[in-house]
Amino acid sequence: MSDSEKLRAWAYLSRVAEGPCAALLSLVDQIGPVDAARAVRQHSDLPEVLRSRTEGRRHIDRVDADLALLDRLGGRLLTREDPEWPHWRFVELGRVRDTAVPTALWVLGDPDLAAVTERAAAIVGTRAASGYGEHVATELSGDLAAEDWAVISGAAYGIDGAAHRAALAAGGVTVAVLACGIDRVYPSGHAGLLRHIAESGSVVTEYPPGTIPAKFRFLARNRLVAALSDATVVVEAGWRSGARNTARWARALGRPVLAVPGPVTAATSRGCHRMIREGEAQLVTGAADVVEAAGPLDAAAGIGAVRAADRAHRRPTDGLDEGELAVYEALPVRGCRDEDQLSVESGLGVGAVRAALPGLEMRGLIEWSDQGWVRVRARRAR
Amino acid sequence: MSDSEKLRAWAYLSRVAEGPCAALLSLVDQIGPVDAARAVRQHSDLPEVLRSRTEGRRHIDRVDADLALLDRLGGRLLTREDPEWPHWRFVELGRVRDTAVPTALWVLGDPDLAAVTERAAAIVGTRAASGYGEHVATELSGDLAAEDWAVISGAAYGIDGAAHRAALAAGGVTVAVLACGIDRVYPSGHAGLLRHIAESGSVVTEYPPGTIPAKFRFLARNRLVAALSDATVVVEAGWRSGARNTARWARALGRPVLAVPGPVTAATSRGCHRMIREGEAQLVTGAADVVEAAGPLDAAAGIGAVRAADRAHRRPTDGLDEGELAVYEALPVRGCRDEDQLSVESGLGVGAVRAALPGLEMRGLIEWSDQGWVRVRARRAR
Repeated sequence: MSDSEKLRAWAYLSRVAEGPCAALLSLVDQIGPVDAARAVRQHSDLPEVLRSRTEGRRHIDRVDADLALLDRLGGRLLTREDPEWPHWRFVELGRVRDTAVPTALWVLGDPDLAAVTERAAAIVGTRAASGYGEHVATELSGDLAAEDWAVISGAAYGIDGAAHRAALAAGGVTVAVLACGIDRVYPSGHAGLLRHIAESGSVVTEYPPGTIPAKFRFLARNRLVAALSDATVVVEAGWRSGARNTARWARALGRPVLAVPGPVTAATSRGCHRMIREGEAQLVTGAADVVEAAGPLDAAAGIGAVRAADRAHRRPTDGLDEGELAVYEALPVRGCRDEDQLSVESGLGVGAVRAALPGLEMRGLIEWSDQGWVRVRARRAR
Repeated sequence: MSDSEKLRAWAYLSRVAEGPCAALLSLVDQIGPVDAARAVRQHSDLPEVLRSRTEGRRHIDRVDADLALLDRLGGRLLTREDPEWPHWRFVELGRVRDTAVPTALWVLGDPDLAAVTERAAAIVGTRAASGYGEHVATELSGDLAAEDWAVISGAAYGIDGAAHRAALAAGGVTVAVLACGIDRVYPSGHAGLLRHIAESGSVVTEYPPGTIPAKFRFLARNRLVAALSDATVVVEAGWRSGARNTARWARALGRPVLAVPGPVTAATSRGCHRMIREGEAQLVTGAADVVEAAGPLDAAAGIGAVRAADRAHRRPTDGLDEGELAVYEALPVRGCRDEDQLSVESGLGVGAVRAALPGLEMRGLIEWSDQGWVRVRARRAR
C-alpha cells in the first residue's frame, strides 16, 4: 500500500467524523487506514457507533481538493503513523477520555511537532485582555521562548495573540491550534499573525480544510492546546472564560495549571483569582515560575510529571563549564555571531571564547554557518 | 486587697519586664499581683529566670506617674483579672508560645476589648503602599466595618492607616495595636488618626507609658494584631515585609491568613504573591472572602475555627423575618432614623416599619434614642 494511498485515506477519515472519534481510530488500528476508509465509505461491517458517526459525511470525498489545497499552502497532514506525531502527549489524552485523541492534524510550518512540543507551555486568556494582561503575556511568552520553550496558544485576539507575537519576536517557536480549517483565517484580524506563525512556528488543526469555527470546536480545540503543553498558563480570564476550559483539560492531564494574578479591581483577572483561590491553578508571576512548575517531579501529577522531570534532566546546557555556558548564552536564539562579537557579549577574552567553541560544537549545541556561529535548534528536525 | 492596690501592682509588673513574661504571670497566678510585685521589687524567693528578667528594672517605680498619665488620657490598664480581658484569644497565644501572653494592656477608647475582638479582622501591609493597595485596604476595611467587623491594625503609614481610616469612615470599630507607650505618637504623622481611633475605637499596647518604638517591639506587636483577630489580611507586602511576620503568627494560631493579589509588575504585591504561591495565605479579593474564610468550620484550623463557626451561628440578625431584616438593615451602623426615614430606606410602608420595630427592640437589636431609632451595638459594653 503506497504512502499516498494511506495519506488519501487519512484525509478522507479526518473529514468523515466531526472531531475526535475513538471508534474510527480503533478500526484503523485493526485494519489500517486504507481499508478503514473503504469500510466507512461503503458502510460495510461497521460497528453501530461508527455507522452513525459517519452517516452524514461518508459520501463526501474532498480528498483531492483538500490535499491539493494543503500542498498549495505548503502544509502537511500528520497522522499517528508519522514519526512527527506527538504520540505520548495523546496517549495521556486518550487515558483521560478515549474519545479525545485527534484523528489527524493538518499542519502548516516547518518545525517537527513532536520535537517542538517536547518543552512547551500554553499561554492563554481572554480575548478582551487589558493592557496589563497583554503586557504580562508578552513578558511571559518572550521569556519562555528565549529559554527555548515553545509557546502554544489559540491565535485569538487578546492574550493568545500577545503570546504568539512575543514568542515570534524573541525568535522562538510558537504553535497556534485552530478551531477551524487550516485554510480559514480566524480571527480575520490575525491574518498577518497566522502567516508569521506558519513561517517560523506551526499552525495546527484537527479540522479538514473549509471547516468554520464554532463554539464546540473552540472547546475541542482547547484540549489540544492543553495536551500539547507541559503547563498551561492563564494570564487573564473573566469570571466565565474559555481559558478555564483549557485549564480543566490540563488538570485532567495531570499537567500544571498556572494563573497570573492581577488587580482585584480588574474584571479581567477575576477568573484567574477564582482558579487560584479554588485550588484549580497555582499563582504564577513570571516565566521562572512556569519552568519550575512544569519541571520538577510532582508525584501527584503522575506519569506526565515524571516525563517532565526526565526532560528537565536533559537540558542541553547540563554539564557545560562556566566558559562554555557563557559563550553559549552569548549566542542569540536566532542569528549568528563571530568570535569577536561573542567575546564582547560573553565578557570573555577572544582566547577563552575560542577555547569554549569546540566543546559546544562537539556537543551539537552550536555550529558554524556561513556568517558565524549559530545555536543548533535541537527541535528543528526539518 | 483593694482594687487600686492591685492596679498599682499590675502597672509595676507591666514595666518591670520587657514584653510578655510567662514566669511573671505564673508567679502572679500563684500569689496574686500585689505579692508578686512585692517579691519582684525585693528580689526575694524569685525563680532564676524571673530574677534575671527583672534585674534591670525592678528598682524603677513609675506607678504613680503612669496611672496619673493614663487617667489624664482617659485610658485604662487591662489585666487578666478584668472581664474585658480577651482571655480566650490569649489562651491560644499561650498555647503557641507560653511566653507570648501579654502581662497587661494599656488601652485608650471606650469599646469593650473582649466584645470588640469577638468578630475582628486584621488588615495589614506595607508602609510604602501603592495607590492600588490603599484603595483595596479602604474597600476591604470599609466593607468589613459595615458588616460589624472590628478592623485591627498597627497604625503604621500605608495599608494600616488606610484600613483604620476606612473603618472609622464606615462608622465601625477599629483597634490600633502600638509598639510603643500609649502616650507616644508614632508615626508622628498619624497623631490625628490615633486621636480619632481612640475616640470611637481602641488604641492598645502592652508597653508602659514612655516606651519608644523599636524593631523588636514591632515584631512583638504583630503577634497581638494576629491574636486579636479572626483572620489576618495582607493587602500589600514587599518581598520581605513585616506583614509576613503578622501572617506567620496568625497561621501559628490556626487563624486564616489571606493575601490580596495585585499586578505581578508591582513590587508592592510580591510578598502577597509569594505567600499565596507558597501556601502561606489564601487569595482574597474582597470582604466576602474574608468573612467566608474566617467564618466556616475548617477542621484543619482546630479550636479557633470551631469558635469562629460558633460565632457565625450567633449572628444577631438570625431569625429575623423579611420585614424586620429590611428595617434593621435600613438603620446605619451609626446614627439614628425616624419611622418615615426607615420607610424610605427600607422600601417598606410606614405601617410595615412600625410592625417590625417592636420585634427588633425586643431582641435588643435597636433602641429608641432622643433623635430616633438606633442600632444597639452589642459589643459596646461601656
